[in-house]
Amino acid sequence: MATVVRNTPRTDLEVVDGLAHAGVATVHEAQGRTGLLRSDIRPIFRPARVAGNALTCEVAPGDNWTIHVSVEQARPGDILVVTPTSPCDDGYVGDLLAESLRAHGVRGVVIDAGVRDVASLTEMGFPVWSKAISAQGTVKETPGNVQTPIICGGVHIRPGDVVVADDDGVVIVRREQAARVLEAALAREANEAAKRKRLADGELGLDIYAMRGRLVDKGLRYVDYTDAP
Amino acid sequence: MATVVRNTPRTDLEVVDGLAHAGVATVHEAQGRTGLLRSDIRPIFRPARVAGNALTCEVAPGDNWTIHVSVEQARPGDILVVTPTSPCDDGYVGDLLAESLRAHGVRGVVIDAGVRDVASLTEMGFPVWSKAISAQGTVKETPGNVQTPIICGGVHIRPGDVVVADDDGVVIVRREQAARVLEAALAREANEAAKRKRLADGELGLDIYAMRGRLVDKGLRYVDYTDAP
Amino acid sequence: MATVVRNTPRTDLEVVDGLAHAGVATVHEAQGRTGLLRSDIRPIFRPARVAGNALTCEVAPGDNWTIHVSVEQARPGDILVVTPTSPCDDGYVGDLLAESLRAHGVRGVVIDAGVRDVASLTEMGFPVWSKAISAQGTVKETPGNVQTPIICGGVHIRPGDVVVADDDGVVIVRREQAARVLEAALAREANEAAKRKRLADGELGLDIYAMRGRLVDKGLRYVDYTDAP
Amino acid sequence: MATVVRNTPRTDLEVVDGLAHAGVATVHEAQGRTGLLRSDIRPIFRPARVAGNALTCEVAPGDNWTIHVSVEQARPGDILVVTPTSPCDDGYVGDLLAESLRAHGVRGVVIDAGVRDVASLTEMGFPVWSKAISAQGTVKETPGNVQTPIICGGVHIRPGDVVVADDDGVVIVRREQAARVLEAALAREANEAAKRKRLADGELGLDIYAMRGRLVDKGLRYVDYTDAP
Amino acid sequence: MATVVRNTPRTDLEVVDGLAHAGVATVHEAQGRTGLLRSDIRPIFRPARVAGNALTCEVAPGDNWTIHVSVEQARPGDILVVTPTSPCDDGYVGDLLAESLRAHGVRGVVIDAGVRDVASLTEMGFPVWSKAISAQGTVKETPGNVQTPIICGGVHIRPGDVVVADDDGVVIVRREQAARVLEAALAREANEAAKRKRLADGELGLDIYAMRGRLVDKGLRYVDYTDAP
Amino acid sequence: MATVVRNTPRTDLEVVDGLAHAGVATVHEAQGRTGLLRSDIRPIFRPARVAGNALTCEVAPGDNWTIHVSVEQARPGDILVVTPTSPCDDGYVGDLLAESLRAHGVRGVVIDAGVRDVASLTEMGFPVWSKAISAQGTVKETPGNVQTPIICGGVHIRPGDVVVADDDGVVIVRREQAARVLEAALAREANEAAKRKRLADGELGLDIYAMRGRLVDKGLRYVDYTDAP
Repeated sequence: MATVVRNTPRTDLEVVDGLAHAGVATVHEAQGRTGLLRSDIRPIFRPARVAGNALTCEVAPGDNWTIHVSVEQARPGDILVVTPTSPCDDGYVGDLLAESLRAHGVRGVVIDAGVRDVASLTEMGFPVWSKAISAQGTVKETPGNVQTPIICGGVHIRPGDVVVADDDGVVIVRREQAARVLEAALAREANEAAKRKRLADGELGLDIYAMRGRLVDKGLRYVDYTDAP
Repeated sequence: MATVVRNTPRTDLEVVDGLAHAGVATVHEAQGRTGLLRSDIRPIFRPARVAGNALTCEVAPGDNWTIHVSVEQARPGDILVVTPTSPCDDGYVGDLLAESLRAHGVRGVVIDAGVRDVASLTEMGFPVWSKAISAQGTVKETPGNVQTPIICGGVHIRPGDVVVADDDGVVIVRREQAARVLEAALAREANEAAKRKRLADGELGLDIYAMRGRLVDKGLRYVDYTDAP
Repeated sequence: MATVVRNTPRTDLEVVDGLAHAGVATVHEAQGRTGLLRSDIRPIFRPARVAGNALTCEVAPGDNWTIHVSVEQARPGDILVVTPTSPCDDGYVGDLLAESLRAHGVRGVVIDAGVRDVASLTEMGFPVWSKAISAQGTVKETPGNVQTPIICGGVHIRPGDVVVADDDGVVIVRREQAARVLEAALAREANEAAKRKRLADGELGLDIYAMRGRLVDKGLRYVDYTDAP
Repeated sequence: MATVVRNTPRTDLEVVDGLAHAGVATVHEAQGRTGLLRSDIRPIFRPARVAGNALTCEVAPGDNWTIHVSVEQARPGDILVVTPTSPCDDGYVGDLLAESLRAHGVRGVVIDAGVRDVASLTEMGFPVWSKAISAQGTVKETPGNVQTPIICGGVHIRPGDVVVADDDGVVIVRREQAARVLEAALAREANEAAKRKRLADGELGLDIYAMRGRLVDKGLRYVDYTDAP
Repeated sequence: MATVVRNTPRTDLEVVDGLAHAGVATVHEAQGRTGLLRSDIRPIFRPARVAGNALTCEVAPGDNWTIHVSVEQARPGDILVVTPTSPCDDGYVGDLLAESLRAHGVRGVVIDAGVRDVASLTEMGFPVWSKAISAQGTVKETPGNVQTPIICGGVHIRPGDVVVADDDGVVIVRREQAARVLEAALAREANEAAKRKRLADGELGLDIYAMRGRLVDKGLRYVDYTDAP
Repeated sequence: MATVVRNTPRTDLEVVDGLAHAGVATVHEAQGRTGLLRSDIRPIFRPARVAGNALTCEVAPGDNWTIHVSVEQARPGDILVVTPTSPCDDGYVGDLLAESLRAHGVRGVVIDAGVRDVASLTEMGFPVWSKAISAQGTVKETPGNVQTPIICGGVHIRPGDVVVADDDGVVIVRREQAARVLEAALAREANEAAKRKRLADGELGLDIYAMRGRLVDKGLRYVDYTDAP
């Protein structure tokens, strides 16, 4: 029951690019600490930072046929998000597919599986976040789904949700919330810049955040080393 | 029953160097998607690309004595391939052994265990593919085997089989098949260059590989987002 | 029963800096192959090499409150060592906390959990050794312990023990033994330099270390390939 | 923004019980090989087989407060499904909570984290599928969500979706599809019984499923051992 | 520098047996949620419940010689606790060693490595908690330490500390605190029995523990499914 | 290039059955501590003990077609050994295939992947050693190899090599060495029975194996607790 869904919604690229600038940690906090993919999905080179509209792709284990199908659905500003129907580390994407994706405006790949040709991808500057690096080749026997909702890295992702990826990992923002999350992220950034200045000057977080009273209430006590049990 | 086998066969270095140039992914495909080591065996620095004749070495867990024995069997163009008799992450190889191996013409190390002094090895430009980086020292109590067939990273390797290693991992080519695989790899490279050009120009893999008919036969269907279930 | 211990002992920074120069592998050997943290605790950038007095911190899973408490106890030359009371990969430390730690003289962080803002930490040149990189945020609800003995990466660490960390991982030196271990490390370094020269000249470890007799005693035998079973 | 959703839909228990009888493997196949949780979520005792309406619960790492909240929302025939907001192996559920859940009609627990008191739970015959067994206690500081959609074991689960769990693992059936999937499962069971009889009599799957022609088309060839390469 | 320490202190067996009766989860809670070994150290058969004085043993990877040394130091009521100096899954203990240990009054084994002959050990009713089951044999080349402080499963253990082990895992009680922890455990058990009765009668934890007010303070809100976002 | 090799050699079943009786640990020792599969390949029920001739089968990831092909090659006394060409946890074998295998005399399955219907297989008493239990279904698209040499669980296995499997795991005996290994195993068993008696009577391994002198030579020293550092 392999399905390609066409004409899916996408998030405005101005919002997408704003989220890229904010970065994964800030966006994750700005939307209430949700949407983060498993931490074993890592960039193949660093530094890397990108955001885009999710172009979703569900593949059979060891079978990358559906990725070829997905290229036709790509629009500039997309990020291809691939998940296998059962755990697999094979190298689904290499430099030829990357070349093809880039020609159609795709900005990068997030895959809960493996990738190959990483030296070439690094030279191309085409960023990939993956669970594994593996040269293991794949077959073309079982078509899967394109632009249907998927689970990737433990997160539910729909076409057109925003994928933000950098050296810290990958976070997903629901397309309906993207503009609001961007706003919260910008506010957070402004706030953090001020705090960072005070911390760099040696002020303590204990004082900036007024934590001392609540710490005592929760039972924190101070003892001298010579008196410690 | 520790054994060192002397005067083992080797593959011609011209073939070996051709395979290095082709790289792991291409060689793996050219020989029918076989011979790839487990993907958790990774290079300690990148980029790195090398090929050589397997100088095999089977060691006891936590015991690197046999690696000292193996150096004497090394010939220029070899790659040392080490496997412990039971799983172990200790740092079997450091910069002194690397210096010694290099003095005898060894081009690199592949080890299903740990390595140490990686900062120094990186400075030396001596490439190592390992399962772990660990400073854990080893003893010299139990001799093992040199130049016998071993399993490393899940692959059966004999002395003189060709080890090809790059950023994508490590693949083994049987010495009897090395010349034939090189030929297939070169053909594949030529073919890929042409395809890469077409893909970079925006042509779809669906069309280049004429996949559309077979995809429909296998049940792929296209629906519009507004009609999707 | 959260406790902060004040006025804990520290190791002289001259000894600490000597140990940093020797590096993890040499220090580990110099103290009898002890004190090494689990090898999955890795630097977020390479190369990196640092040593410092352990500023210990035990935190609840998903809760970084105690790290804020720990900053007040920091002294120049410290390395913050963090361990959760149960396994956790969350990003306990980011660039704001790093800025604050650095302002108080802390040289780096070792954490048996996750870290975030790694692009920013890399730009800052603030080294961190961690089990994971994860943007996952943490709460501030449960205070833990500062400057009490902890287990981190499988090693028992007390405040003021010396933390030595480089590309090979992290090793701990007891503060009472630090001066003696430094001496042994220096002796080892001198010895290794001489050996390295001989090995680079092609001399075999088998001969330098006079291993041949003992190998035969332990049953090692040499056979020719054509006679091998 | 912790939320408890009340009066969520549930699937008819007659359908639920039919799916329990069919079992995980059959249900998984009957709905097109979807909905299976990660295979590291295992039963604490075997044999065990149960189905129920998902009572979903999202918890902070190391914090089981929300599970207490969830009990009030339980209805007879439910299965509690728990997921932490970041990976955690702590023992969220023990025999007291199990007693409470059972008193409110809950048939079992599926948790992408740890469980404790397993000897007592085994005596009670209260089935739990978990990622870990751990006595590690949890705090009650951060409320989470009850009866909101969650990801557990890599699968998207909504309140009232059907949870089917047995020795093979756990599969989820969407509540809208439950009746249809049950029908397909029953058909499959009938078909399998007939096939099993033929296979037990020695008939080959190659013949029953008429595979020989297609295997040859795909390149399968038969050689004699003495002629094998 | 292998050392055997003789005449180490032990905890009174009456206290030890009381702790066994309380079990791992209760003891862990009674001492403030500390002392629990990593959850991947599991019993080889279930149910199993035992407590004893730690007879500590530190071994080289793949080398069980020191376990033979440890038997001589055993006293009735001991539990042998074994840790390798670097990670190893080999089968250090089999039925012969178990027979020998039992003859000297040892009640069981906790090992951060592997065990073998588990069918025979199960028949003997000799309980073992281990990280792996593996037939892999070990050598006798490198002596280690007996009755020195060790780290096992991430916990610091000294000779004569109490080891409590059951189906939930393993917890360590400091010998100086054993009597006090037993008292706290007994109090906890009494309290739990009363609570369990109320929970079994359907009373909610929310009410028994008076959680509702604090949950509201922390932001928990209730919404109806038809109003949910 | 999928190949089925017919008329492969097999080991005499009298030898095979003798090896089954000796068990995995004894056979592993009797052949010099070789041939053991990775320890994460575990029996689905315990106790289980069996031996047979390897019927080898190499499959594509997520594709069990070749297992159907293998049944036709089965002979009474075989054990099916399955390995995927890249890592995969899917449930390749269920009760229908088991029924078919049993009808053709196959005694069990060893698979470096997943199995399903384990409740039913347990009832049948059909033993399986696998890396995972998973209901995940597989496709029938890519034929693989039957009765060719394979790597399974890190061991090189040829058709007709002897597979010995019990609660400790799985070990392989080369068919050419099977008779000799059986003899060595029987000798070992006799020897162990005598030793076990002496150990059960309280005699120390230190004395039985005359270890004391060599331990002192290797530096073991005894100190009293009150004198320990």
